[in-house]
Amino acid sequence: MNVLIVFAHPERKSFNGGLVDVAIESLQAVGHTVELNDLYQEEFDPVERAGHYRERVDDTYFAPLSEQRAHYERGILTPEVQREISRLEWADLVIFQFPLWWHAQPAILKGWFDRVLVYGGLYSGSRRYDRGHFRGKKAMLSVTTGSPEQAFMPFGRAGNMVEWLWPMHSSLYYVGFDVLPPQVSYGIQGGGIRYEDESRFREQLEQKKTLWAERLPGLFDETPIPFTGWEDWDEDGMLQQTHPMRWRL
Amino acid sequence: MNVLIVFAHPERKSFNGGLVDVAIESLQAVGHTVELNDLYQEEFDPVERAGHYRERVDDTYFAPLSEQRAHYERGILTPEVQREISRLEWADLVIFQFPLWWHAQPAILKGWFDRVLVYGGLYSGSRRYDRGHFRGKKAMLSVTTGSPEQAFMPFGRAGNMVEWLWPMHSSLYYVGFDVLPPQVSYGIQGGGIRYEDESRFREQLEQKKTLWAERLPGLFDETPIPFTGWEDWDEDGMLQQTHPMRWRL
Repeated sequence: MNVLIVFAHPERKSFNGGLVDVAIESLQAVGHTVELNDLYQEEFDPVERAGHYRERVDDTYFAPLSEQRAHYERGILTPEVQREISRLEWADLVIFQFPLWWHAQPAILKGWFDRVLVYGGLYSGSRRYDRGHFRGKKAMLSVTTGSPEQAFMPFGRAGNMVEWLWPMHSSLYYVGFDVLPPQVSYGIQGGGIRYEDESRFREQLEQKKTLWAERLPGLFDETPIPFTGWEDWDEDGMLQQTHPMRWRL
Repeated sequence: MNVLIVFAHPERKSFNGGLVDVAIESLQAVGHTVELNDLYQEEFDPVERAGHYRERVDDTYFAPLSEQRAHYERGILTPEVQREISRLEWADLVIFQFPLWWHAQPAILKGWFDRVLVYGGLYSGSRRYDRGHFRGKKAMLSVTTGSPEQAFMPFGRAGNMVEWLWPMHSSLYYVGFDVLPPQVSYGIQGGGIRYEDESRFREQLEQKKTLWAERLPGLFDETPIPFTGWEDWDEDGMLQQTHPMRWRL
């Protein structure tokens, strides 16, 4: 199978970079083809702006979605966005490797969503969620945090990890991906604060790499996270009156 | 009082831009001083990277938090980050005006968090949350969405709005802000897809501006969103055994 790794850390030698290496090795070892997209290395521009659109539908008013749709249909999106879309079309599984910064992905990866998942091309109307463009493909997040696991329990000091990843999980599901449970490597400081002790960094990296390496070969057999889907909603987009979770509203 | 508006939309004439205008007018009318930071206009660079740090602690390994701390302490952060910090120190209230893109803020605003809220300077150790640097100041989000309000109910087609704003609310609280309830303008398409009908855009803008204008003069009297705080957590960062919400874990 084809696996795309989207990597968003400014230091290739970081803990995150180490987790990328072990993913490439482990996936290739069981016969998968792996492509790495290192957003920092490729100097991906995360800012959605008028300058990216060379034949504007309206050059007096910049409406991002209108321009995305028109440029997709005419095949004139910027080369970097076209390349990202080609990679997604090629991949059977997409792994996002990044550190949790301010309760979300780094800006360079947030902008990958803003610019690459183009309106009209990758979603529109009812072509969303379980009817989405990438249905049949899988995606997952591999995340590192500075705080320890206990602090990410509900009401904990670092907040609930399920809540921090929910926006990205939902965005991936929005365009049709089956989203696998995340790989969270807690209590890592190598990407943020420099380790005083190099051997401690190596020791912790080996430990987390081992956990990740053990999981990687079986990813294609895992059960995705369940979401509500098109048939669960009424015309206004609310949960159907008859849905068993309706009592929660 | 001093109010800073941080604005993140690529089109100044957009719906979001209209909500900025009404905020400036309404706040000035009741005697507040308002400063606008238009991130697109100022060409803010949202990507946290090695190139922003001119006297690296370690130029063989880029650890963002270590460099943030060192450059803050020596007063050599980039001018754009220093200006943002000065604006925050000046403000009594910070309003963030932006469209919801992929279940979060646009990348240019995500990177504002990544780069401006510097480690060592604006938070460290126990100087976080209700003990945070900006305690006593207020912050709030003013957000526009394409989908209608019903679709943002729990389990709805557009997802739960409380969940989409929770990461940003938590980041602001992390550095000590009292976070006011958000102003959400639902069902707006002017920033994304171009309105076919200019008069429909104007009509909808006037309606949402009126709601916002009515709320703005009373913002300083509003009650902030409640959060758990330093005394609620044990040493590991988990909710105290004795906390009344502990039954939820």
